[in-house]
Amino acid sequence: MQVMLSSDLMGKGEDTNEYDVIVIGAGPAGLTAAIYSARYGLNTAFFESVDPVSQLSLTPWIENYPGYEGSGFELLERMKNQALKFGAVHKFENVENVKKANGKFEVAADGGTYYARALIIATGGKHKELGVPGEREFVGRGVSYCATCDGHFFRGKKVLVVGGGNTALTDAIYLKETGCDVTLVHRRDELRADRALQEEFFKREIPVIWNSVVERIEGGEKVERVVLLNRATGEEQVVEVDGIFIAVGIRPATDIVMDLGVERDSAGYIKVDRKQRTNVDGVYAAGDCTENPLKQVVTACAEGAIAANSAFEYIKMMKS
Amino acid sequence: MQVMLSSDLMGKGEDTNEYDVIVIGAGPAGLTAAIYSARYGLNTAFFESVDPVSQLSLTPWIENYPGYEGSGFELLERMKNQALKFGAVHKFENVENVKKANGKFEVAADGGTYYARALIIATGGKHKELGVPGEREFVGRGVSYCATCDGHFFRGKKVLVVGGGNTALTDAIYLKETGCDVTLVHRRDELRADRALQEEFFKREIPVIWNSVVERIEGGEKVERVVLLNRATGEEQVVEVDGIFIAVGIRPATDIVMDLGVERDSAGYIKVDRKQRTNVDGVYAAGDCTENPLKQVVTACAEGAIAANSAFEYIKMMKS
Repeated sequence: MQVMLSSDLMGKGEDTNEYDVIVIGAGPAGLTAAIYSARYGLNTAFFESVDPVSQLSLTPWIENYPGYEGSGFELLERMKNQALKFGAVHKFENVENVKKANGKFEVAADGGTYYARALIIATGGKHKELGVPGEREFVGRGVSYCATCDGHFFRGKKVLVVGGGNTALTDAIYLKETGCDVTLVHRRDELRADRALQEEFFKREIPVIWNSVVERIEGGEKVERVVLLNRATGEEQVVEVDGIFIAVGIRPATDIVMDLGVERDSAGYIKVDRKQRTNVDGVYAAGDCTENPLKQVVTACAEGAIAANSAFEYIKMMKS
Repeated sequence: MQVMLSSDLMGKGEDTNEYDVIVIGAGPAGLTAAIYSARYGLNTAFFESVDPVSQLSLTPWIENYPGYEGSGFELLERMKNQALKFGAVHKFENVENVKKANGKFEVAADGGTYYARALIIATGGKHKELGVPGEREFVGRGVSYCATCDGHFFRGKKVLVVGGGNTALTDAIYLKETGCDVTLVHRRDELRADRALQEEFFKREIPVIWNSVVERIEGGEKVERVVLLNRATGEEQVVEVDGIFIAVGIRPATDIVMDLGVERDSAGYIKVDRKQRTNVDGVYAAGDCTENPLKQVVTACAEGAIAANSAFEYIKMMKS
């Protein structure tokens, strides 16, 4: 079917740099936007960046995406294959800059400049940093933001997970299952994660250091210890560890839309209406980079579908 | 895990008629709401009705739900199993009426009366009728609204499919594959379905009678012929057929919320905000029964998740 579609798409294919729709991002929002856009018969490219990668690809186990249980990576692969099947073109390039010129959107990426009539921004977010001494210094030497990527290095070793949300608990469970000696550090006295996930977490008897924040990370060649501050008592506590996994949230990766004049809220999330339209005609946004009410894989997907539908309506209007 | 959850849910289980959340509907929106609500640790029941059944269960092939390709029925089964796994209770009962009394929602169903602190309406819709002579008379004797259900009765026979959207084309392709001699009748001169689906449709060389509407359906014991009116020329055309599959859209099944005072638009769709809240506190709605901008499986699922999240926040607020 892909052949039929490609031949029909205004004669464009892999060898062009002009598209109807360019989707920036290849997480659940971006891939669903690509699936829908290609199915609408629009000549579509989606850009997958090396940094940040989709948060979903780092998630060891998903069980609340309707109809699917398994790894985040596998789910993304399935979505990607659907997008390709319908004729969307995959570009494995970082996008550096986006602007509007001569009535088209100009996308400057590693591999060249590309043009589109409509843009769908689905850039997701990057992990937040703690911003404490030693954090950047020890990245890759004991400090990690990705349990799935780095967990196996710490088998049989002592690690901290910092955070109290779904990601932190999923990571802690994953690391425990992987054979790490895990302790959770959380700044409050209760967890923020889903109840079902908390059950799974507590069932594994993973110890929790409550009301505590990381003050600094210390070591020599590698991380050796973390200094915690108890917010309730004001006391410091030194914990000897080999690794520290930081899972304290996501910051939206939306600097790319700055030159387009796309409105963002104070935290940097792109403002959209119910049709995923931004304040700029022809620019749509979906997923974690937007100020949506619930950040989940399934909501990101739905927004990607709606964004593609809006892009389709916009392009159809231009044509007629 | 289900055991752990159940024991923890305020001692409630299958033998109660009191729930935190009652979800009315067991299509993609309702099942996702049940998955999320149960995962939030809320005591949750979801009601599956005999009539209408979920439109998705009638869909022979889904290929635009991100991460899944297969039958609608199979996708729903997977979602249902997820909801059950997290401890949601499945009630296979028609809901007759819903009202608020003594600060609770009272749900009158076939099997008894149930109570909930929050309601999620995910009743979807029922097929629209053409409203022409012979239509009701021949239901089950040649007139059908469900290709997956009835298609095999017409193998080797001549059938019409009426409509021009995704459902009509999916049905026509399915009937063709099943071995029927299919013709499509559409009231306009172009199809409304997704481009990719149109490709699949035209590839199969299914004939189309354009610009035509059904005037009446005639026969004896069974359907024998359909009289069409060409809207462009005003001419009548008689087509000898064994069956007619009507796929002209969905009407929201929202009469059930009338006594609650839930606002609906002029077409009967429930009005919701971005958090799937209706105008009535504690009542949320999701999926095809709402006035959402895009009616797809994935958007229905996302709305179900958001509705459950809003119900969770509402109940948590009541508790504290």
